[in-house]
Amino acid sequence: MKLLSVLTLACAGVLVSMPALAQFQKPEDAVKYRKAAFTVMGAHFGRIGAMANGRVPFDAKVAADNAVIVETMSKLPWAAFGEGTDKGDTRAKPEVWTEQAKFKEGADKMQVELTKLAAATKTGNLDAVKTAFGAAGQTCKACHDAYRKD
Amino acid sequence: MKLLSVLTLACAGVLVSMPALAQFQKPEDAVKYRKAAFTVMGAHFGRIGAMANGRVPFDAKVAADNAVIVETMSKLPWAAFGEGTDKGDTRAKPEVWTEQAKFKEGADKMQVELTKLAAATKTGNLDAVKTAFGAAGQTCKACHDAYRKD
Repeated sequence: MKLLSVLTLACAGVLVSMPALAQFQKPEDAVKYRKAAFTVMGAHFGRIGAMANGRVPFDAKVAADNAVIVETMSKLPWAAFGEGTDKGDTRAKPEVWTEQAKFKEGADKMQVELTKLAAATKTGNLDAVKTAFGAAGQTCKACHDAYRKD
Repeated sequence: MKLLSVLTLACAGVLVSMPALAQFQKPEDAVKYRKAAFTVMGAHFGRIGAMANGRVPFDAKVAADNAVIVETMSKLPWAAFGEGTDKGDTRAKPEVWTEQAKFKEGADKMQVELTKLAAATKTGNLDAVKTAFGAAGQTCKACHDAYRKD
């Protein structure tokens, strides 16, 4: 038990006093986590974008591998926008919390489009990837415009 | 084309001048990315640890969902330890680059143990999860001790 606690600390920095159901011990942990999820998502989305834009040669396997990661990441940040996470090192606008239904709608739409993008990459058809990438990108932009400070 | 570029920027911050094959435009992007991947991995690993430690009730489905994310994340950081990424906002020790084979060995071992952890969570057997979590945690700790500054 003690060893497991030490190992949890080594890997995750989770304290033993963590409340039973809280996913994050402190609001700043949630902020750090959601930003990290967006960072990883953005990096892999950008690699598909580089192919959609013709800046790097299209490689269907690489696009598909990246799209799977993007799709996985797209599900993660939302649990980290809980109460009390509107402060600190974040560019999230107050509207995230005052327009929760609309924010969730945008987040859901993004996930749907990224699932479509993952499907498109599996076809190996660059035009399908371009179309899906564009649609997914619109959903990123919509939320950034509405809910993220410059 | 122009729209796709704007959308790539909106989602990923990737500049249009990105070199054709580089996965990261600047060393600091790689550092930020690998830290983000570890942050996400650690958060989800910690949730399995909370169950392995008995701090939260064991839920096989939750453990398995987290383990899949941990396993996916465990593959990501290594491409971001390239040349020139030993500087800046990082706790990585120089040994990461002077002992590359050993570092890779540790990284590979960790991925193997996390795959085992994912398999263990699928059995629904808490004891199996505890054992696999402990083994995986040892691989985290070994690399942190050797390759990460306090």
